[in-house]
Amino acid sequence: MQVAGQHYQTIWLKPGENRIVQIIDQRFLPFRFTVEDLRTLADCVCAIKDMHVRGAPLIGACAAYGMYLAACEAKEHGPSAGWLAAAAADLKAARPTAVNLAWAVDRQLEKAGAGESLHAQIELLRAGAESIRELELENSRKIGEHGYPIIEELATRKRGQPVNILTHCNAGWLACIDYGTATAPIYYAFDRGIRLHVWVDETRPRNQGSRLTAWELGEHGISHTIIADNTGGHLMQRGLVDVVIVGSDRTTCAGDVANKIGTYLKALAAKDNKVPFYAALPSSTIDWDLRSGGDIEIEERGAEEVKYVEGWSGDERKTVLVAPENSPAMNYAFDVTPARLVSGLITERGICEASEQGIIRLFPERVRA
Amino acid sequence: MQVAGQHYQTIWLKPGENRIVQIIDQRFLPFRFTVEDLRTLADCVCAIKDMHVRGAPLIGACAAYGMYLAACEAKEHGPSAGWLAAAAADLKAARPTAVNLAWAVDRQLEKAGAGESLHAQIELLRAGAESIRELELENSRKIGEHGYPIIEELATRKRGQPVNILTHCNAGWLACIDYGTATAPIYYAFDRGIRLHVWVDETRPRNQGSRLTAWELGEHGISHTIIADNTGGHLMQRGLVDVVIVGSDRTTCAGDVANKIGTYLKALAAKDNKVPFYAALPSSTIDWDLRSGGDIEIEERGAEEVKYVEGWSGDERKTVLVAPENSPAMNYAFDVTPARLVSGLITERGICEASEQGIIRLFPERVRA
Repeated sequence: MQVAGQHYQTIWLKPGENRIVQIIDQRFLPFRFTVEDLRTLADCVCAIKDMHVRGAPLIGACAAYGMYLAACEAKEHGPSAGWLAAAAADLKAARPTAVNLAWAVDRQLEKAGAGESLHAQIELLRAGAESIRELELENSRKIGEHGYPIIEELATRKRGQPVNILTHCNAGWLACIDYGTATAPIYYAFDRGIRLHVWVDETRPRNQGSRLTAWELGEHGISHTIIADNTGGHLMQRGLVDVVIVGSDRTTCAGDVANKIGTYLKALAAKDNKVPFYAALPSSTIDWDLRSGGDIEIEERGAEEVKYVEGWSGDERKTVLVAPENSPAMNYAFDVTPARLVSGLITERGICEASEQGIIRLFPERVRA
Repeated sequence: MQVAGQHYQTIWLKPGENRIVQIIDQRFLPFRFTVEDLRTLADCVCAIKDMHVRGAPLIGACAAYGMYLAACEAKEHGPSAGWLAAAAADLKAARPTAVNLAWAVDRQLEKAGAGESLHAQIELLRAGAESIRELELENSRKIGEHGYPIIEELATRKRGQPVNILTHCNAGWLACIDYGTATAPIYYAFDRGIRLHVWVDETRPRNQGSRLTAWELGEHGISHTIIADNTGGHLMQRGLVDVVIVGSDRTTCAGDVANKIGTYLKALAAKDNKVPFYAALPSSTIDWDLRSGGDIEIEERGAEEVKYVEGWSGDERKTVLVAPENSPAMNYAFDVTPARLVSGLITERGICEASEQGIIRLFPERVRA
């Protein structure tokens, strides 16, 4: 989408220099827009682990490029035994919850598998990464297209009054290649002239909402307001939210939605106030082996993310302590919203009910014997 | 309660110097423990408005002392026409949501009302403030006593495993004179040797949980863990919360509970996971004229509280920007939890159902003709 009037995506091969992968280093947003060069597998693992890139589809794409860079390194330094499997393991271990990560790595493993020469593997892995990138881009575009009627209908019902959409975390284009997942219908509707306004949950502890979603909506010219995560329920009680759209890091084949911690609370409030609640996700996010959301492994991150807040003071990046130094803190990164609270899943194939039957109807090739 | 091993309360007349009211200036906690002298009505209004003191019972007590200081000033500088009514109006306007504020001011107005000499008014207002202080202290003590069996029963059921209590914001002794409201049963149980652990919602945007509740629990030696406000639902889904206890800034006579923004979301999660959810409050918090929580005026505070975070960097107090400078933010301070989500109200007279009948059973003198 637009950044200062110029079109950007989140990850790409450096033009004229295929040996380098470039990303927007999202750690410095919204204060500094920085493009980072990734040259090694370790760069990619670090970019995923330390959240230079985040968001399920982008993590998958970055991991796919990581496999490609590992192959380049193997050629340059001589391949060690089992380098491909080791690279796959390193990448998969970088973040535990996002299913796209494992999906992308496994797809690359299949592509570049047995019997190929190293030279051929490099080409296959590059093409594989490019195709995952294209696929995710197309997925986002289609999610926007399929989700659009939800917003259009609300606009019609509101007779042109702005449609108020609440979103949590950043399932925006910064989490994908472009368009986003939760934001894809928003950009799609905005670009078609629908009046809308987005409530942006700041999304503690890492503030992906206030730092990233607010920034990307602002750069694209979309009206939005940042709120503390505590606020959404009150807004719904007051009729100030027409629809909630969030992303997902992993969705079970029965429709339970793992997403950024706090999503479950918004889903409860939506249900209590009869506000429709949608999760937007590419089918690569669906875990076909998992039925119950309770079985999803939930990443636990460091306590310092809760106790310290990173921000800017003038031109300086500063970290401030916001709690007693000796108090412990706990930091679960995701929660699971049970399917019963989800009005529907917006996927690249269309909208379906958040249930095994609903999902299978859209993805019949997934039915197992 | 204890601060570095010494007993403190939140507001008192300076020993041997009745013309000065002293408070703990809570803005600097948990990083600096500061006692502030209040000498004028304006000092009190500022202390309430700028949240040197906060919490419904403490705000009421501080306002009561403000009326006393206004009388002292009237004597020293000559009373202007209508000084008493003006002082009352100034204090009531300092914060809009807490009903104790208006209650305490009206009670002082009654005490020092018509026909008394200024000298007598000073004495009456001082005694009135002291009695409100004593009353709130006694209220907290009794709330602790009445709430204790809830925790005791959970401890018995858990056979001595720690009882996990989740609380939101600071309804601790720092919000009262001592003991607190939500925390009163916790301190009471802890002091009787019950094993417990408190989940402390950080409570954005002002972080009263991580700054104040964590600090006061830590100083008193109570095991606790700070969590992002987003986390409570997930903990309940995992069975890691045995009971939720919160305070209240205003409770309607039908049992709807206005409390710090985000309380409603925790109440929804508690209901969804069959976790008991209690509000602890002195009856001065009950608005006998209001039935529906929807009619409670909700304070809206400045956007900068959402976009900027105050904390400490070494010994320096720092404010950092955590959002795009140009993005708007909205900052409702409270929300309303409907009575249907509240398991019970813990008051100074005992526990009652959150309903008109339940409340009236405890406070029969409030039945109107």
